[in-house]
Amino acid sequence: MTQTTPAHLEYVLRLGDAALIHGQRLSEWCGHAPVLEEDLALANMALDFVGQARMLLSHAGVLEGKGRDEDTLAFLRHEGQYRNPTLCEMPNTDFAHTMIKGFLLGSFNLLMWSRLCGSSDEALAAIAAKSLKEARYHVEHTGDWVIRLGDGTEESHRRAQAALDMLWPYTNELFAANPTDDAAAAAGVGPAWSDLAEDWEKAVLAVLKHATLTVPARTPFQSYGKFGRHSEHLGHLLAVMQHLPRSFPGATW
Amino acid sequence: MTQTTPAHLEYVLRLGDAALIHGQRLSEWCGHAPVLEEDLALANMALDFVGQARMLLSHAGVLEGKGRDEDTLAFLRHEGQYRNPTLCEMPNTDFAHTMIKGFLLGSFNLLMWSRLCGSSDEALAAIAAKSLKEARYHVEHTGDWVIRLGDGTEESHRRAQAALDMLWPYTNELFAANPTDDAAAAAGVGPAWSDLAEDWEKAVLAVLKHATLTVPARTPFQSYGKFGRHSEHLGHLLAVMQHLPRSFPGATW
Repeated sequence: MTQTTPAHLEYVLRLGDAALIHGQRLSEWCGHAPVLEEDLALANMALDFVGQARMLLSHAGVLEGKGRDEDTLAFLRHEGQYRNPTLCEMPNTDFAHTMIKGFLLGSFNLLMWSRLCGSSDEALAAIAAKSLKEARYHVEHTGDWVIRLGDGTEESHRRAQAALDMLWPYTNELFAANPTDDAAAAAGVGPAWSDLAEDWEKAVLAVLKHATLTVPARTPFQSYGKFGRHSEHLGHLLAVMQHLPRSFPGATW
Repeated sequence: MTQTTPAHLEYVLRLGDAALIHGQRLSEWCGHAPVLEEDLALANMALDFVGQARMLLSHAGVLEGKGRDEDTLAFLRHEGQYRNPTLCEMPNTDFAHTMIKGFLLGSFNLLMWSRLCGSSDEALAAIAAKSLKEARYHVEHTGDWVIRLGDGTEESHRRAQAALDMLWPYTNELFAANPTDDAAAAAGVGPAWSDLAEDWEKAVLAVLKHATLTVPARTPFQSYGKFGRHSEHLGHLLAVMQHLPRSFPGATW
Protein backbone atom coordinates (compact mmCIF):
# COMPACT_ATOMS: atom_id res chain seq x y z
CA MET A 1 0.00 0.00 0.00
CA THR A 2 1.10 3.52 -0.85
CA GLN A 3 2.39 5.63 1.98
CA THR A 4 -0.18 8.21 2.98
CA THR A 5 0.49 11.75 1.85
CA PRO A 6 -1.80 14.78 2.23
CA ALA A 7 -2.50 14.57 -1.50
CA HIS A 8 -3.46 10.91 -1.20
CA LEU A 9 -5.92 11.68 1.58
CA GLU A 10 -7.31 14.67 -0.30
CA TYR A 11 -7.74 12.58 -3.43
CA VAL A 12 -9.78 9.96 -1.56
CA LEU A 13 -11.79 12.62 0.28
CA ARG A 14 -12.82 14.16 -3.05
CA LEU A 15 -14.11 10.81 -4.24
CA GLY A 16 -15.84 10.13 -0.94
CA ASP A 17 -17.49 13.53 -0.72
CA ALA A 18 -18.56 13.41 -4.36
CA ALA A 19 -20.35 10.13 -3.64
CA LEU A 20 -21.80 11.37 -0.35
CA ILE A 21 -23.20 14.66 -1.61
CA HIS A 22 -24.48 13.23 -4.88
CA GLY A 23 -26.10 10.41 -2.92
CA GLN A 24 -27.70 12.84 -0.48
CA ARG A 25 -29.17 14.87 -3.35
CA LEU A 26 -30.56 11.77 -5.03
CA SER A 27 -32.10 10.62 -1.75
CA GLU A 28 -34.20 13.81 -1.71
CA TRP A 29 -36.25 12.23 -4.50
CA CYS A 30 -37.39 9.40 -2.25
CA GLY A 31 -41.18 9.42 -2.37
CA HIS A 32 -41.30 12.25 -4.93
CA ALA A 33 -40.33 10.67 -8.24
CA PRO A 34 -42.79 10.81 -11.16
CA VAL A 35 -43.43 7.05 -11.21
CA LEU A 36 -42.93 4.34 -8.60
CA GLU A 37 -40.33 2.42 -10.59
CA GLU A 38 -38.25 5.55 -10.94
CA ASP A 39 -38.65 6.34 -7.28
CA LEU A 40 -37.07 2.99 -6.51
CA ALA A 41 -34.35 3.48 -9.11
CA LEU A 42 -33.41 6.87 -7.68
CA ALA A 43 -33.40 5.55 -4.13
CA ASN A 44 -31.28 2.61 -5.24
CA MET A 45 -28.76 4.86 -6.93
CA ALA A 46 -28.71 7.08 -3.84
CA LEU A 47 -27.92 4.02 -1.74
CA ASP A 48 -25.16 3.00 -4.13
CA PHE A 49 -23.53 6.39 -3.68
CA VAL A 50 -23.97 6.43 0.08
CA GLY A 51 -22.45 2.95 0.16
CA GLN A 52 -19.48 4.15 -1.87
CA ALA A 53 -19.17 7.16 0.43
CA ARG A 54 -19.07 4.87 3.48
CA MET A 55 -16.20 2.83 2.05
CA LEU A 56 -14.30 5.86 0.79
CA LEU A 57 -14.70 7.93 3.94
CA SER A 58 -13.81 4.97 6.17
CA HIS A 59 -10.70 4.56 4.08
CA ALA A 60 -9.99 8.30 4.28
CA GLY A 61 -10.27 8.07 8.06
CA VAL A 62 -7.67 5.30 8.09
CA LEU A 63 -5.38 7.28 5.78
CA GLU A 64 -5.76 10.33 8.00
CA GLY A 65 -4.95 8.32 11.10
CA LYS A 66 -6.74 10.62 13.54
CA GLY A 67 -9.45 8.24 14.57
CA ARG A 68 -12.23 9.76 12.48
CA ASP A 69 -14.64 7.17 11.12
CA GLU A 70 -17.08 7.35 8.23
CA ASP A 71 -19.81 8.95 10.34
CA THR A 72 -17.55 11.62 11.75
CA LEU A 73 -16.29 12.51 8.30
CA ALA A 74 -19.73 12.39 6.72
CA PHE A 75 -21.65 14.29 9.35
CA LEU A 76 -19.37 16.38 11.52
CA ARG A 77 -17.33 18.47 9.15
CA HIS A 78 -18.10 22.08 8.26
CA GLU A 79 -18.97 23.27 4.79
CA GLY A 80 -15.47 24.35 3.76
CA GLN A 81 -14.09 20.94 4.69
CA TYR A 82 -16.10 19.05 2.07
CA ARG A 83 -14.22 18.26 -1.11
CA ASN A 84 -16.95 17.29 -3.59
CA PRO A 85 -17.05 19.00 -6.97
CA THR A 86 -19.71 21.71 -6.96
CA LEU A 87 -21.75 19.85 -9.58
CA CYS A 88 -22.68 17.21 -6.97
CA GLU A 89 -24.36 19.75 -4.70
CA MET A 90 -26.44 21.50 -7.34
CA PRO A 91 -30.16 21.26 -6.56
CA ASN A 92 -32.35 18.58 -8.11
CA THR A 93 -34.59 21.31 -9.55
CA ASP A 94 -36.60 18.90 -11.69
CA PHE A 95 -36.38 15.37 -13.07
CA ALA A 96 -34.44 16.55 -16.14
CA HIS A 97 -31.81 18.31 -14.04
CA THR A 98 -31.43 15.20 -11.92
CA MET A 99 -30.99 12.90 -14.89
CA ILE A 100 -28.62 15.20 -16.77
CA LYS A 101 -26.53 15.67 -13.65
CA GLY A 102 -26.60 11.97 -12.87
CA PHE A 103 -25.48 11.18 -16.40
CA LEU A 104 -22.66 13.76 -16.44
CA LEU A 105 -21.35 12.57 -13.08
CA GLY A 106 -22.02 8.90 -13.79
CA SER A 107 -20.03 9.00 -17.01
CA PHE A 108 -17.16 10.54 -15.10
CA ASN A 109 -17.40 7.93 -12.34
CA LEU A 110 -17.42 5.08 -14.83
CA LEU A 111 -14.07 6.19 -16.24
CA MET A 112 -12.71 6.99 -12.80
CA TRP A 113 -13.55 3.63 -11.22
CA SER A 114 -12.27 1.83 -14.25
CA ARG A 115 -8.90 3.51 -13.84
CA LEU A 116 -8.89 3.16 -10.05
CA CYS A 117 -9.18 -0.61 -10.31
CA GLY A 118 -5.43 -0.41 -10.93
CA SER A 119 -4.68 1.93 -8.01
CA SER A 120 -1.49 1.44 -6.01
CA ASP A 121 -3.79 1.91 -2.98
CA GLU A 122 -5.21 -1.59 -2.70
CA ALA A 123 -8.16 -0.58 -0.56
CA LEU A 124 -9.10 2.03 -3.13
CA ALA A 125 -8.72 -0.51 -5.93
CA ALA A 126 -11.13 -2.83 -4.13
CA ILE A 127 -13.68 -0.04 -3.68
CA ALA A 128 -13.29 0.79 -7.36
CA ALA A 129 -13.99 -2.76 -8.46
CA LYS A 130 -17.27 -2.79 -6.56
CA SER A 131 -18.25 0.74 -7.58
CA LEU A 132 -17.51 0.16 -11.24
CA LYS A 133 -20.44 -2.25 -11.57
CA GLU A 134 -22.77 0.27 -9.98
CA ALA A 135 -21.50 3.07 -12.21
CA ARG A 136 -22.28 0.99 -15.32
CA TYR A 137 -25.91 0.81 -14.27
CA HIS A 138 -26.02 4.50 -13.33
CA VAL A 139 -24.76 5.55 -16.75
CA GLU A 140 -27.11 3.22 -18.55
CA HIS A 141 -30.13 4.33 -16.56
CA THR A 142 -29.48 8.06 -16.61
CA GLY A 143 -28.26 7.94 -20.23
CA ASP A 144 -31.53 6.29 -21.28
CA TRP A 145 -33.43 9.07 -19.57
CA VAL A 146 -31.30 11.80 -21.13
CA ILE A 147 -32.21 10.43 -24.55
CA ARG A 148 -35.85 9.90 -23.64
CA LEU A 149 -36.18 13.44 -22.30
CA GLY A 150 -34.06 15.20 -24.92
CA ASP A 151 -35.61 13.34 -27.83
CA GLY A 152 -39.08 13.32 -26.26
CA THR A 153 -41.80 15.95 -26.12
CA GLU A 154 -41.30 19.65 -26.61
CA GLU A 155 -41.59 20.16 -22.87
CA SER A 156 -39.16 17.39 -21.93
CA HIS A 157 -36.65 18.61 -24.51
CA ARG A 158 -36.93 22.17 -23.23
CA ARG A 159 -36.33 21.04 -19.65
CA ALA A 160 -33.43 18.74 -20.57
CA GLN A 161 -31.78 21.52 -22.57
CA ALA A 162 -32.28 24.00 -19.72
CA ALA A 163 -30.71 21.52 -17.31
CA LEU A 164 -27.75 20.91 -19.59
CA ASP A 165 -27.22 24.66 -20.09
CA MET A 166 -27.28 25.18 -16.34
CA LEU A 167 -25.07 22.27 -15.33
CA TRP A 168 -22.56 22.05 -18.16
CA PRO A 169 -20.29 24.87 -16.90
CA TYR A 170 -19.83 22.97 -13.63
CA THR A 171 -18.19 20.09 -15.47
CA ASN A 172 -15.17 22.35 -16.06
CA GLU A 173 -14.22 21.80 -12.45
CA LEU A 174 -13.99 18.04 -12.90
CA PHE A 175 -11.03 18.42 -15.21
CA ALA A 176 -9.20 21.39 -13.69
CA ALA A 177 -5.54 20.57 -13.11
CA ASN A 178 -4.26 20.82 -9.52
CA PRO A 179 -1.30 19.65 -7.39
CA THR A 180 -3.35 17.02 -5.54
CA ASP A 181 -4.02 15.24 -8.79
CA ASP A 182 -0.41 15.56 -9.92
CA ALA A 183 0.84 13.97 -6.70
CA ALA A 184 -1.78 11.22 -6.71
CA ALA A 185 -1.03 10.38 -10.32
CA ALA A 186 2.71 10.33 -9.67
CA ALA A 187 2.21 7.92 -6.76
CA GLY A 188 -0.05 5.68 -8.80
CA VAL A 189 -2.99 6.32 -6.47
CA GLY A 190 -5.19 7.30 -9.37
CA PRO A 191 -5.37 9.34 -12.55
CA ALA A 192 -5.30 13.11 -12.63
CA TRP A 193 -8.98 13.85 -13.23
CA SER A 194 -7.98 15.91 -16.25
CA ASP A 195 -6.74 12.72 -17.89
CA LEU A 196 -10.32 11.55 -18.14
CA ALA A 197 -11.54 14.64 -19.98
CA GLU A 198 -11.17 13.36 -23.50
CA ASP A 199 -12.85 10.00 -22.97
CA TRP A 200 -15.56 11.62 -20.88
CA GLU A 201 -16.40 14.17 -23.53
CA LYS A 202 -16.47 11.51 -26.24
CA ALA A 203 -18.86 9.32 -24.25
CA VAL A 204 -21.06 12.17 -23.11
CA LEU A 205 -21.33 13.97 -26.43
CA ALA A 206 -22.46 10.80 -28.20
CA VAL A 207 -25.43 10.46 -25.87
CA LEU A 208 -26.26 14.17 -25.91
CA LYS A 209 -26.27 14.09 -29.70
CA HIS A 210 -28.55 11.08 -29.69
CA ALA A 211 -30.77 13.04 -27.31
CA THR A 212 -30.89 15.93 -29.85
CA LEU A 213 -29.51 18.28 -27.19
CA THR A 214 -27.26 21.21 -28.02
CA VAL A 215 -23.96 21.07 -26.17
CA PRO A 216 -23.20 24.48 -24.66
CA ALA A 217 -19.95 26.18 -25.66
CA ARG A 218 -17.15 25.83 -23.14
CA THR A 219 -16.63 28.99 -21.07
CA PRO A 220 -13.88 29.95 -18.63
CA PHE A 221 -16.33 29.52 -15.72
CA GLN A 222 -14.77 27.66 -12.84
CA SER A 223 -16.31 26.33 -9.65
CA TYR A 224 -14.14 25.23 -6.75
CA GLY A 225 -16.03 22.70 -4.66
CA LYS A 226 -13.24 20.14 -4.68
CA PHE A 227 -11.01 22.81 -3.16
CA GLY A 228 -13.57 23.45 -0.41
CA ARG A 229 -15.15 26.60 -1.86
CA HIS A 230 -18.77 25.72 -2.42
CA SER A 231 -21.93 27.16 -3.91
CA GLU A 232 -24.70 28.53 -1.70
CA HIS A 233 -26.43 25.16 -1.99
CA LEU A 234 -24.08 22.99 0.05
CA GLY A 235 -24.73 24.71 3.38
CA HIS A 236 -28.44 24.02 3.14
CA LEU A 237 -27.84 20.42 2.08
CA LEU A 238 -25.53 19.93 5.08
CA ALA A 239 -28.01 21.57 7.46
CA VAL A 240 -30.53 18.88 6.56
CA MET A 241 -28.03 16.01 6.27
CA GLN A 242 -26.33 16.79 9.56
CA HIS A 243 -29.45 17.68 11.52
CA LEU A 244 -29.86 14.39 13.34
CA PRO A 245 -26.21 13.77 14.37
CA ARG A 246 -25.83 17.45 15.31
CA SER A 247 -29.04 17.43 17.35
CA PHE A 248 -28.33 14.14 19.11
CA PRO A 249 -24.54 14.00 19.40
CA GLY A 250 -23.26 10.45 19.71
CA ALA A 251 -26.70 8.93 19.17
CA THR A 252 -26.71 5.26 18.22
CA TRP A 253 -29.49 2.94 17.17
CA MET B 1 -47.77 38.93 38.33
CA THR B 2 -49.74 35.75 37.81
CA GLN B 3 -48.36 32.62 39.36
CA THR B 4 -46.80 30.40 36.69
CA THR B 5 -48.82 27.37 35.70
CA PRO B 6 -48.01 24.87 32.93
CA ALA B 7 -50.83 26.41 30.92
CA HIS B 8 -49.39 29.90 31.36
CA LEU B 9 -45.99 28.75 30.11
CA GLU B 10 -47.55 26.87 27.22
CA TYR B 11 -49.61 29.89 26.26
CA VAL B 12 -46.53 32.11 26.10
CA LEU B 13 -44.52 29.45 24.23
CA ARG B 14 -47.19 29.29 21.54
CA LEU B 15 -46.95 33.03 21.02
CA GLY B 16 -43.16 32.95 21.07
CA ASP B 17 -42.88 30.04 18.67
CA ALA B 18 -45.46 31.52 16.33
CA ALA B 19 -43.35 34.69 16.13
CA LEU B 20 -40.09 32.76 15.79
CA ILE B 21 -41.17 30.39 13.03
CA HIS B 22 -43.09 33.02 11.09
CA GLY B 23 -40.07 35.32 11.37
CA GLN B 24 -37.71 32.59 10.20
CA ARG B 25 -39.88 31.92 7.15
CA LEU B 26 -40.05 35.61 6.28
CA SER B 27 -36.28 35.91 6.62
CA GLU B 28 -35.90 33.35 3.81
CA TRP B 29 -37.01 36.12 1.45
CA CYS B 30 -33.97 38.25 2.28
CA GLY B 31 -32.29 38.99 -1.05
CA HIS B 32 -34.98 37.23 -3.06
CA ALA B 33 -37.98 39.58 -3.04
CA PRO B 34 -39.36 40.86 -6.37
CA VAL B 35 -38.33 44.49 -5.75
CA LEU B 36 -35.79 46.05 -3.41
CA GLU B 37 -38.33 47.97 -1.35
CA GLU B 38 -40.25 44.77 -0.71
CA ASP B 39 -37.07 42.92 0.15
CA LEU B 40 -36.49 45.48 2.89
CA ALA B 41 -40.11 45.35 4.04
CA LEU B 42 -40.00 41.55 4.33
CA ALA B 43 -36.69 41.62 6.17
CA ASN B 44 -38.06 44.30 8.49
CA MET B 45 -41.14 42.26 9.26
CA ALA B 46 -38.97 39.21 9.82
CA LEU B 47 -36.91 41.19 12.32
CA ASP B 48 -40.07 42.38 14.07
CA PHE B 49 -41.13 38.78 14.56
CA VAL B 50 -37.69 37.60 15.66
CA GLY B 51 -37.64 40.52 18.11
CA GLN B 52 -41.04 39.49 19.48
CA ALA B 53 -39.81 35.90 19.70
CA ARG B 54 -36.79 37.00 21.72
CA MET B 55 -38.95 38.80 24.27
CA LEU B 56 -41.55 36.04 24.44
CA LEU B 57 -39.07 33.17 24.70
CA SER B 58 -36.98 35.02 27.28
CA HIS B 59 -40.15 35.47 29.26
CA ALA B 60 -41.07 31.80 28.76
CA GLY B 61 -37.65 30.86 30.09
CA VAL B 62 -38.29 32.90 33.23
CA LEU B 63 -41.75 31.38 33.65
CA GLU B 64 -40.28 27.91 33.23
CA GLY B 65 -37.60 28.60 35.81
CA LYS B 66 -35.14 26.02 34.52
CA GLY B 67 -32.48 28.44 33.35
CA ARG B 68 -33.26 28.24 29.64
CA ASP B 69 -32.77 31.55 27.86
CA GLU B 70 -34.14 32.80 24.54
CA ASP B 71 -31.36 31.16 22.52
CA THR B 72 -31.75 27.78 24.18
CA LEU B 73 -35.48 27.83 23.61
CA ALA B 74 -35.21 29.13 20.06
CA PHE B 75 -32.42 26.88 18.85
CA LEU B 76 -32.05 23.81 21.00
CA ARG B 77 -35.46 22.23 21.14
CA HIS B 78 -36.57 19.34 18.97
CA GLU B 79 -39.40 19.52 16.47
CA GLY B 80 -42.15 18.17 18.72
CA GLN B 81 -41.32 20.76 21.35
CA TYR B 82 -42.22 23.74 19.20
CA ARG B 83 -45.69 25.14 19.80
CA ASN B 84 -46.34 27.37 16.78
CA PRO B 85 -49.54 26.90 14.80
CA THR B 86 -48.81 24.91 11.64
CA LEU B 87 -49.74 27.88 9.45
CA CYS B 88 -46.53 29.66 10.53
CA GLU B 89 -44.29 26.89 9.19
CA MET B 90 -45.93 26.54 5.78
CA PRO B 91 -43.46 27.23 2.97
CA ASN B 92 -43.22 30.64 1.34
CA THR B 93 -43.93 29.03 -2.05
CA ASP B 94 -44.35 32.35 -3.86
CA PHE B 95 -44.94 36.00 -3.08
CA ALA B 96 -48.71 35.53 -3.02
CA HIS B 97 -48.50 32.69 -0.48
CA THR B 98 -46.24 34.82 1.67
CA MET B 99 -48.53 37.82 1.61
CA ILE B 100 -51.73 35.84 2.15
CA LYS B 101 -50.14 33.99 5.06
CA GLY B 102 -48.70 37.19 6.49
CA PHE B 103 -52.09 38.83 6.29
CA LEU B 104 -53.98 35.91 7.88
CA LEU B 105 -51.47 35.67 10.72
CA GLY B 106 -51.01 39.43 11.03
CA SER B 107 -54.76 39.99 11.42
CA PHE B 108 -54.76 37.38 14.16
CA ASN B 109 -51.77 38.96 15.88
CA LEU B 110 -53.33 42.42 15.79
CA LEU B 111 -56.33 41.19 17.76
CA MET B 112 -54.17 39.07 20.04
CA TRP B 113 -51.75 41.82 21.02
CA SER B 114 -54.60 44.24 21.48
CA ARG B 115 -56.19 41.88 24.01
CA LEU B 116 -52.86 40.97 25.64
CA CYS B 117 -52.19 44.61 26.49
CA GLY B 118 -54.51 43.89 29.40
CA SER B 119 -52.85 40.64 30.47
CA SER B 120 -52.55 39.84 34.15
CA ASP B 121 -48.96 38.86 33.24
CA GLU B 122 -47.33 42.30 33.25
CA ALA B 123 -44.30 41.24 31.24
CA LEU B 124 -46.59 39.83 28.58
CA ALA B 125 -48.67 43.02 28.61
CA ALA B 126 -45.52 45.05 27.98
CA ILE B 127 -44.49 42.84 25.08
CA ALA B 128 -48.01 43.17 23.69
CA ALA B 129 -47.90 46.96 23.78
CA LYS B 130 -44.72 47.00 21.72
CA SER B 131 -45.83 44.26 19.35
CA LEU B 132 -49.21 45.83 18.72
CA LYS B 133 -47.63 48.72 16.85
CA GLU B 134 -45.67 46.34 14.67
CA ALA B 135 -48.75 44.23 13.98
CA ARG B 136 -50.63 47.30 12.73
CA TYR B 137 -47.98 47.83 10.08
CA HIS B 138 -47.86 44.14 9.18
CA VAL B 139 -51.61 44.03 8.56
CA GLU B 140 -51.56 47.23 6.57
CA HIS B 141 -48.66 46.14 4.41
CA THR B 142 -49.76 42.56 3.77
CA GLY B 143 -53.41 43.61 3.42
CA ASP B 144 -52.45 46.12 0.71
CA TRP B 145 -50.64 43.36 -1.14
CA VAL B 146 -53.53 40.92 -0.79
CA ILE B 147 -55.77 43.47 -2.51
CA ARG B 148 -53.16 44.36 -5.10
CA LEU B 149 -52.56 40.72 -5.98
CA GLY B 150 -56.16 39.52 -5.77
CA ASP B 151 -57.55 42.49 -7.67
CA GLY B 152 -54.57 42.67 -10.01
CA THR B 153 -53.67 40.72 -13.12
CA GLU B 154 -55.10 37.36 -14.09
CA GLU B 155 -51.83 35.74 -13.01
CA SER B 156 -51.62 37.53 -9.65
CA HIS B 157 -55.27 36.74 -8.93
CA ARG B 158 -54.75 33.08 -9.79
CA ARG B 159 -51.74 32.87 -7.48
CA ALA B 160 -53.42 34.72 -4.62
CA GLN B 161 -56.48 32.48 -4.89
CA ALA B 162 -54.30 29.35 -4.96
CA ALA B 163 -52.47 30.57 -1.86
CA LEU B 164 -55.72 31.29 -0.03
CA ASP B 165 -57.14 27.89 -0.99
CA MET B 166 -54.00 26.20 0.29
CA LEU B 167 -53.59 28.15 3.53
CA TRP B 168 -57.16 28.77 4.62
CA PRO B 169 -57.72 25.30 6.18
CA TYR B 170 -54.74 25.91 8.48
CA THR B 171 -56.53 28.86 10.07
CA ASN B 172 -58.91 26.37 11.71
CA GLU B 173 -56.13 25.53 14.15
CA LEU B 174 -55.88 29.11 15.37
CA PHE B 175 -59.33 28.94 16.86
CA ALA B 176 -59.48 25.33 18.10
CA ALA B 177 -60.55 25.20 21.74
CA ASN B 178 -58.14 23.57 24.20
CA PRO B 179 -57.46 23.38 27.95
CA THR B 180 -54.38 25.62 27.76
CA ASP B 181 -56.50 28.46 26.46
CA ASP B 182 -59.23 27.82 29.01
CA ALA B 183 -56.74 28.00 31.88
CA ALA B 184 -54.96 31.06 30.49
CA ALA B 185 -58.25 32.85 29.98
CA ALA B 186 -59.45 31.96 33.48
CA ALA B 187 -56.22 33.36 34.97
CA GLY B 188 -56.48 36.53 32.93
CA VAL B 189 -53.21 35.76 31.13
CA GLY B 190 -54.86 36.22 27.77
CA PRO B 191 -57.91 35.40 25.68
CA ALA B 192 -58.77 31.91 24.51
CA TRP B 193 -57.69 32.14 20.89
CA SER B 194 -61.16 31.01 19.87
CA ASP B 195 -62.53 34.25 21.31
CA LEU B 196 -60.81 36.11 18.50
CA ALA B 197 -62.43 34.07 15.74
CA GLU B 198 -65.37 36.31 15.06
CA ASP B 199 -63.46 39.59 14.91
CA TRP B 200 -60.71 37.94 12.89
CA GLU B 201 -63.11 36.60 10.32
CA LYS B 202 -64.84 39.92 10.02
CA ALA B 203 -61.59 41.80 9.44
CA VAL B 204 -60.13 39.21 7.10
CA LEU B 205 -63.24 38.68 4.97
CA ALA B 206 -63.58 42.39 4.31
CA VAL B 207 -60.11 42.54 2.79
CA LEU B 208 -60.48 39.29 0.87
CA LYS B 209 -63.73 40.56 -0.61
CA HIS B 210 -62.06 43.81 -1.63
CA ALA B 211 -59.34 41.64 -3.20
CA THR B 212 -62.03 39.81 -5.23
CA LEU B 213 -60.87 36.51 -3.74
CA THR B 214 -63.23 33.63 -3.07
CA VAL B 215 -63.18 32.53 0.54
CA PRO B 216 -62.93 28.74 0.71
CA ALA B 217 -65.66 26.85 2.56
CA ARG B 218 -64.74 25.83 6.10
CA THR B 219 -63.85 22.13 6.34
CA PRO B 220 -63.25 19.91 9.39
CA PHE B 221 -59.52 19.85 8.55
CA GLN B 222 -57.39 20.32 11.66
CA SER B 223 -53.67 20.85 12.03
CA TYR B 224 -51.98 20.49 15.39
CA GLY B 225 -48.78 22.53 15.40
CA LYS B 226 -49.60 24.36 18.61
CA PHE B 227 -49.88 20.98 20.28
CA GLY B 228 -46.45 19.98 18.98
CA ARG B 229 -47.59 17.85 16.02
CA HIS B 230 -46.17 19.54 12.98
CA SER B 231 -46.24 19.31 9.21
CA GLU B 232 -43.30 17.87 7.26
CA HIS B 233 -42.07 21.43 6.75
CA LEU B 234 -40.99 22.31 10.27
CA GLY B 235 -38.17 19.78 10.48
CA HIS B 236 -36.48 21.22 7.41
CA LEU B 237 -36.96 24.77 8.67
CA LEU B 238 -35.39 23.81 12.01
CA ALA B 239 -32.49 22.01 10.31
CA VAL B 240 -31.54 25.27 8.64
CA MET B 241 -32.39 27.53 11.58
CA GLN B 242 -30.53 25.42 14.11
CA HIS B 243 -27.55 24.58 11.93
CA LEU B 244 -25.13 27.10 13.37
CA PRO B 245 -25.85 26.64 17.10
CA ARG B 246 -25.96 22.86 16.64
CA SER B 247 -22.68 22.85 14.69
CA PHE B 248 -20.86 25.19 17.05
CA PRO B 249 -22.37 24.48 20.48
CA GLY B 250 -22.02 27.42 22.82
CA ALA B 251 -20.55 29.67 20.14
CA THR B 252 -20.61 33.38 20.90
CA TRP B 253 -19.71 36.41 18.82
